[in-house]
Amino acid sequence: MTYFPNVNQIKFEGSDSNNPFAFKYYNPEEIVGGQSMKEYLRYSIAYWHTFTGDGSDPFGVGTALRPWNHLTGLDLAKARVEAAFEFFEKMNAPFFCFHDVDVAPEGSTLRETNKNLDVIISMIKEYMKTSNTKLLWNTANMFSNPRYVHGAATSCNADVFAYSAAKVKKGLEVGKELGAENYVFWGGREGYETLLNTDMGLELDNLARFFHLAVDYAKEIGFDAPFLIEPKPKEPSTHQYDFDVATGLAFLQKYDLTDSFKFNIEANHATLAGHTFEHELHLARINGMLGSVDANQGNTLLGWDTDEFPTDLYTTTLAMYEIIKNGGLGKGGLNFDAKVRRGSFDTDDLFHAHIAGMDSFAIGLKVAQKLIDDKVLDDFVADRYSSFTQGIGLDIVEGKTDLHKLEAYALDLPEIQNKSGRQELLKATINRYILNVSAGVTV
Amino acid sequence: MTYFPNVNQIKFEGSDSNNPFAFKYYNPEEIVGGQSMKEYLRYSIAYWHTFTGDGSDPFGVGTALRPWNHLTGLDLAKARVEAAFEFFEKMNAPFFCFHDVDVAPEGSTLRETNKNLDVIISMIKEYMKTSNTKLLWNTANMFSNPRYVHGAATSCNADVFAYSAAKVKKGLEVGKELGAENYVFWGGREGYETLLNTDMGLELDNLARFFHLAVDYAKEIGFDAPFLIEPKPKEPSTHQYDFDVATGLAFLQKYDLTDSFKFNIEANHATLAGHTFEHELHLARINGMLGSVDANQGNTLLGWDTDEFPTDLYTTTLAMYEIIKNGGLGKGGLNFDAKVRRGSFDTDDLFHAHIAGMDSFAIGLKVAQKLIDDKVLDDFVADRYSSFTQGIGLDIVEGKTDLHKLEAYALDLPEIQNKSGRQELLKATINRYILNVSAGVTV
Amino acid sequence: MTYFPNVNQIKFEGSDSNNPFAFKYYNPEEIVGGQSMKEYLRYSIAYWHTFTGDGSDPFGVGTALRPWNHLTGLDLAKARVEAAFEFFEKMNAPFFCFHDVDVAPEGSTLRETNKNLDVIISMIKEYMKTSNTKLLWNTANMFSNPRYVHGAATSCNADVFAYSAAKVKKGLEVGKELGAENYVFWGGREGYETLLNTDMGLELDNLARFFHLAVDYAKEIGFDAPFLIEPKPKEPSTHQYDFDVATGLAFLQKYDLTDSFKFNIEANHATLAGHTFEHELHLARINGMLGSVDANQGNTLLGWDTDEFPTDLYTTTLAMYEIIKNGGLGKGGLNFDAKVRRGSFDTDDLFHAHIAGMDSFAIGLKVAQKLIDDKVLDDFVADRYSSFTQGIGLDIVEGKTDLHKLEAYALDLPEIQNKSGRQELLKATINRYILNVSAGVTV
Amino acid sequence: MTYFPNVNQIKFEGSDSNNPFAFKYYNPEEIVGGQSMKEYLRYSIAYWHTFTGDGSDPFGVGTALRPWNHLTGLDLAKARVEAAFEFFEKMNAPFFCFHDVDVAPEGSTLRETNKNLDVIISMIKEYMKTSNTKLLWNTANMFSNPRYVHGAATSCNADVFAYSAAKVKKGLEVGKELGAENYVFWGGREGYETLLNTDMGLELDNLARFFHLAVDYAKEIGFDAPFLIEPKPKEPSTHQYDFDVATGLAFLQKYDLTDSFKFNIEANHATLAGHTFEHELHLARINGMLGSVDANQGNTLLGWDTDEFPTDLYTTTLAMYEIIKNGGLGKGGLNFDAKVRRGSFDTDDLFHAHIAGMDSFAIGLKVAQKLIDDKVLDDFVADRYSSFTQGIGLDIVEGKTDLHKLEAYALDLPEIQNKSGRQELLKATINRYILNVSAGVTV
Ligand SMILES: [Co+2]
Ligand SMILES: [Co+2]
Ligand SMILES: [Co+2]
Ligand SMILES: [Co+2]
Ligand SMILES: [Co+2]
Ligand SMILES: [Co+2]
Ligand SMILES: [Co+2]
Ligand SMILES: [Co+2]
Repeated sequence: MTYFPNVNQIKFEGSDSNNPFAFKYYNPEEIVGGQSMKEYLRYSIAYWHTFTGDGSDPFGVGTALRPWNHLTGLDLAKARVEAAFEFFEKMNAPFFCFHDVDVAPEGSTLRETNKNLDVIISMIKEYMKTSNTKLLWNTANMFSNPRYVHGAATSCNADVFAYSAAKVKKGLEVGKELGAENYVFWGGREGYETLLNTDMGLELDNLARFFHLAVDYAKEIGFDAPFLIEPKPKEPSTHQYDFDVATGLAFLQKYDLTDSFKFNIEANHATLAGHTFEHELHLARINGMLGSVDANQGNTLLGWDTDEFPTDLYTTTLAMYEIIKNGGLGKGGLNFDAKVRRGSFDTDDLFHAHIAGMDSFAIGLKVAQKLIDDKVLDDFVADRYSSFTQGIGLDIVEGKTDLHKLEAYALDLPEIQNKSGRQELLKATINRYILNVSAGVTV
Repeated sequence: MTYFPNVNQIKFEGSDSNNPFAFKYYNPEEIVGGQSMKEYLRYSIAYWHTFTGDGSDPFGVGTALRPWNHLTGLDLAKARVEAAFEFFEKMNAPFFCFHDVDVAPEGSTLRETNKNLDVIISMIKEYMKTSNTKLLWNTANMFSNPRYVHGAATSCNADVFAYSAAKVKKGLEVGKELGAENYVFWGGREGYETLLNTDMGLELDNLARFFHLAVDYAKEIGFDAPFLIEPKPKEPSTHQYDFDVATGLAFLQKYDLTDSFKFNIEANHATLAGHTFEHELHLARINGMLGSVDANQGNTLLGWDTDEFPTDLYTTTLAMYEIIKNGGLGKGGLNFDAKVRRGSFDTDDLFHAHIAGMDSFAIGLKVAQKLIDDKVLDDFVADRYSSFTQGIGLDIVEGKTDLHKLEAYALDLPEIQNKSGRQELLKATINRYILNVSAGVTV
Repeated sequence: MTYFPNVNQIKFEGSDSNNPFAFKYYNPEEIVGGQSMKEYLRYSIAYWHTFTGDGSDPFGVGTALRPWNHLTGLDLAKARVEAAFEFFEKMNAPFFCFHDVDVAPEGSTLRETNKNLDVIISMIKEYMKTSNTKLLWNTANMFSNPRYVHGAATSCNADVFAYSAAKVKKGLEVGKELGAENYVFWGGREGYETLLNTDMGLELDNLARFFHLAVDYAKEIGFDAPFLIEPKPKEPSTHQYDFDVATGLAFLQKYDLTDSFKFNIEANHATLAGHTFEHELHLARINGMLGSVDANQGNTLLGWDTDEFPTDLYTTTLAMYEIIKNGGLGKGGLNFDAKVRRGSFDTDDLFHAHIAGMDSFAIGLKVAQKLIDDKVLDDFVADRYSSFTQGIGLDIVEGKTDLHKLEAYALDLPEIQNKSGRQELLKATINRYILNVSAGVTV
Repeated sequence: MTYFPNVNQIKFEGSDSNNPFAFKYYNPEEIVGGQSMKEYLRYSIAYWHTFTGDGSDPFGVGTALRPWNHLTGLDLAKARVEAAFEFFEKMNAPFFCFHDVDVAPEGSTLRETNKNLDVIISMIKEYMKTSNTKLLWNTANMFSNPRYVHGAATSCNADVFAYSAAKVKKGLEVGKELGAENYVFWGGREGYETLLNTDMGLELDNLARFFHLAVDYAKEIGFDAPFLIEPKPKEPSTHQYDFDVATGLAFLQKYDLTDSFKFNIEANHATLAGHTFEHELHLARINGMLGSVDANQGNTLLGWDTDEFPTDLYTTTLAMYEIIKNGGLGKGGLNFDAKVRRGSFDTDDLFHAHIAGMDSFAIGLKVAQKLIDDKVLDDFVADRYSSFTQGIGLDIVEGKTDLHKLEAYALDLPEIQNKSGRQELLKATINRYILNVSAGVTV
């Protein structure tokens, strides 16, 4: 049986192809910066948006036309697994990601839920034996069920903490079972609505306790995948505890968790927090904590997480620039935490959208690699900060100075000369690199 | 004497040039859609940002290094005119724009101010005799002087209304004198800070009275340039009366001013109002009121008007798409209401920035024209709305129906079938067109 | 049978009561400004949030514990009607509002849907015979069903237009049947996601056609309730056509619909559009188009419509100020288009929330009336604009001037003197009036 | 000589006074929570906004009418000092704050600048001998002069780092000389415009080096005032390094600076970062790092720092709640980092505005203290989290559990019961407390 009968495996056909079901820029075997695109880009399909999502929004029920819509319960869950692996193969996707509740229905107790999960995990494991698609990460959904109304690890209700801990235990076991490359914690409802009813200190302490319990258990069972926190501000809680990378870093430092965690950085979460995507990637990178990426985009004219497929080439270029500078993502990947628009409701759109995202990051990779190869930004930056490689600047960097010496140096300085930052020229240069990369022009 | 000795006239050298002082994409004589780029793009230099602006911001004084910084008064004003026409020529700019106070210093009375202005206008007129650069529009600055603290035409002080009216009288005369293509009204401080002290009804009535007086006077002196309102929300007044195109339209309709006014639409004002640039252009266009464009861009992560030079190719493409669909801008143009960043403080940056903007709109023009030539969006849209060209849809459009008939049609309809909007595919197509345009690839 | 056994009718007990199930400030029979609070405030319960809403959000299913949760279909619909009228009575609510789909389940065709609706409308009508609660307005939900994925009156699909028209026909009949005071159009999905696939001109023309059809039919059946447009930006469509009052006004003027429509203004929609609530009320008022109010509040740190119960006394005061200045709302009312937070999930919260809203607007009424009685703002404003009641100012207002005369007046004016706007003093005064109102202090 | 001849010392007259030049709520000697208001509230006047600021904005020059406007240079500086101490006395202000450049003009070298500063500091010191007003904090302005165009401690230019260090050296000496209670670091232009030209890693390392140098020098000279970082996002740099409290905390932790620094938290900076004021206060408090407060307010409909005088009683109440819970601010205070609106340009407005702010925080103090005395929130919160004081919850908090035990506990749990968060009831309660506090009602 096939779920997507009209679509064959997506092939690279180049930018002059008019076939909507072909890659125009993503050529898996093409070598960029010494690696194949496929190795470098480590794309991942998000199970929830692509197989569980239905196109509903706060103003209306789902619109998605899916060949499994008539099914329920475990039958539905199984059909989705079948469809998923067909989709993975047709997209030639190296990875996928899921939450527990995406793949299997909940039971009336956690014991039953886990039983359902076991059925589907076995099936997935069986599929993975013959599939080229591996598990980038799994996670536990601890926000959709009403029990999490006041949070999970930060709930005011100890039963909810316990329940959530048990879910993570199972999640870690599943991750180990399926060979997950990472394990992700997105802080769902870990946050608060109003300080009027909240003990933030206890909640944050509990969150740290929760993470330490998870770290200990992963060690116990020998599951050595990196743990990733995915920062997000404002949604669904009015105040989410993992607001952005800096906030996550402050938390991990305070509670002695920096060795066990890195960040999974999502583009749309960055912009909701008031940052660019590349800012968050960069900040994680210079702290040695860039773990993985949720590759999507938002709409900065809207105030919520729209999780659009990434097509903005400026963003994909600057993101790939950070990733290359990071030496790649290691065990991380580029997970399309993105959903087709509510108005893009047929299954063809799932292919169009993933092709759009994969092509866009492929272009970003090529442009970024060329920027690096040509030392366009590196040389400019090196020159700009060169005063710190000699004289008083070097003394500052090497810690060989104090306020007395610095004052002596500065007291009679004539007007200090600065050099232009050249922002407009640099932006024009980025345009030229983006346009030329596809033309094969040597800039 | 030369003000920009290091820079010669900017020439087109193509995208493989590494010369920062060359156009890579803007080729003035290249024919696109049956017109030369120069005719189509009607670029204009904004006097205030490029010759008057100093790089100051609310947190610091100016940084701009300009060869006229040592001068004051009329000497300064004259030096700027000389520099401006040198810059216009080196940029090969077809147009420029100015406010009265950009070009000449204020005196202690309006009579003196006008006298100063006359000196400089004569000088400009002389320069224009031999220059290829024409005046796209002029306007009166009615917001910087403390007298406008509570507005100009909408001030609570009748003296300020009278003074402002006299300024516009002079502005219209200057416009006629210099052959201005348009006359612009940006609502400076026409707005309010708090309703607690404001009579909004009187202020809006006065604004309409003001516009009618200006319309009458322009007719009287035979100055037939289109009048343009430039909408902007939030700055400098907390509530600006010309919030966006729709707001301007409601005002012009209510006060019977639609025949005399069109809109001057600025990209950064659009986004501050919560719209895209293309939304505002489109809305003006379908109301027959797209007059001219302030070509810049903002930063949607910031909450104020940053007036950056336009480099975002998505925006320039979609803007040019609207402009081509409008049959061009007529007497309007693309005015770079944009300033170099405070950190881009030397005169070279003025060239880099304008080249960046001109190249970016040139690319936008080429991509948009190709999208139109290939009917990429037109065909998709025509098909999408085809149900309104026949049957019940045609009846609706032709007004041949009523609720009885429509109910009869609808009561027993089975589930209605819709077609996907294909947003992701369309966005990927835009990427392909942008990338291919520079490669000369036939998409 | 009772749905809220723990709560009796809510009574006024005054501000020193500690009973959470009592009004502290809303005293229905208290006379303020010559009318009883109950007559003035015309509170309305929103059926959808209070009886249909379940506390779900994009990240999780419903949390609301409701005594009707075990029911389905028409049984559920009937139970909700019973609960609603019990709630109305216990709250002593003068009005309620509903969408068609709030009260009755949809069938597989519109004919069946209307049949279901008839059953429930009969039941509601029966209840209304003995209830003190009247229908402020009803409306048709034309956004939740997948058929409206691309809009209703602005769909690209003519079948959807026809279907929607039939729904409005039924809605007008229901409104007439139940004696609705108004009929509301909130533009659900009337907007667009991306211009790339949109014919905005046709969509807006169709929207106008749709409204004219509705106007004609209402006349035909003798249903003379005011029609109200409820502006909203950004949600659910990225670009909603009825962005704000000004946008609605431009539309109604263009399509000759101003005689048939007024506005229903929602606080949270105002702030999403970048305005204050009082700005939107004021703008509608000075255009003679303030019809009714959706009384809620948002969170300006979040970017979506949170529809919170109104408790901010600054907002309720300034809103009531506009409403009193408008001579009341006529047939309009104060509809609590507000939902209890997802974490406020038991039925007691429904009472707490409505008490909070009703008390807050009662305070607002008292403070606003006192500000008006004391001419606090009126006198300040009159003095501030007094220059327009004499001399050149009067000439301006009476149209007895032109640019020549104004220039002659202005040319030799010495430095113009303005007067301080006193914003800080006025804000402190508002604080004093709010604080003193409950103390019974004569300010 | 007097600078404010029309205004006498401001006295407390109570809420029924109509005298605009009287406190209505701030009664310095009134005891609240065991301390006098004056001791508790530790108000401070911001020299820059009140004596240096001129009402200019990016669209116009200053409007402020000040009796010292005709002066320049050191004469101007001296007149401002005289005016300041007259104002302090008339406001009965316990503290003031300043940047170096607020009080004395810059010279052509730092040596000259320091000489000017010495003149004025001597004069201030002399005034302080007989004044009741002390120095809450001073700081160095390292953002206004063009030399700081690319930052100060984070400049790409080592000379600027050295110059800035010398300025801080002087600032610490001045602080010690005048007995400053604290020393503040607001990160002016410490941030970046675009990553394209930025070495963020080096800049942050340099910032830490800078702070360590300052810490060392303060120790050396025996200046033991707490060092305070004032977080702010987005302005003037697009990306400010001290975005918010969490970001500051991550930085201080990473660079081992937590022992030497606390935070100076500004209301308007909190909201620009997407948080509430109370969130930032709370977060600092539970980390033991709440040092001082910049007491102002912003306009969340605008996207920049408006620095308005605080009049919102919700904010002052919740701020004072955090401050009381913190055991007061210690050596910190409530500094009115607030400016009169551009339209409030006469000297009377300076009094009106400060009275408004002082009255508003006085009310906040009284309401907050009553909320605490009555245990309104404390009891609710204690009950809400009571599951962590016993059984499994206590085990969690005490670290006596692991994922095995928690799973065993959770596996067969029936549906978990949560309790409503009662947000609406709590908000109504806050209203009641605010209204009753001025009525003297026992809630
Ligand atoms: Co994500
Ligand atoms: Co997301
Ligand atoms: Co402009
Ligand atoms: Co602008
Ligand atoms: Co509403
Ligand atoms: Co709403
Ligand atoms: Co501050
Ligand atoms: Co500030």
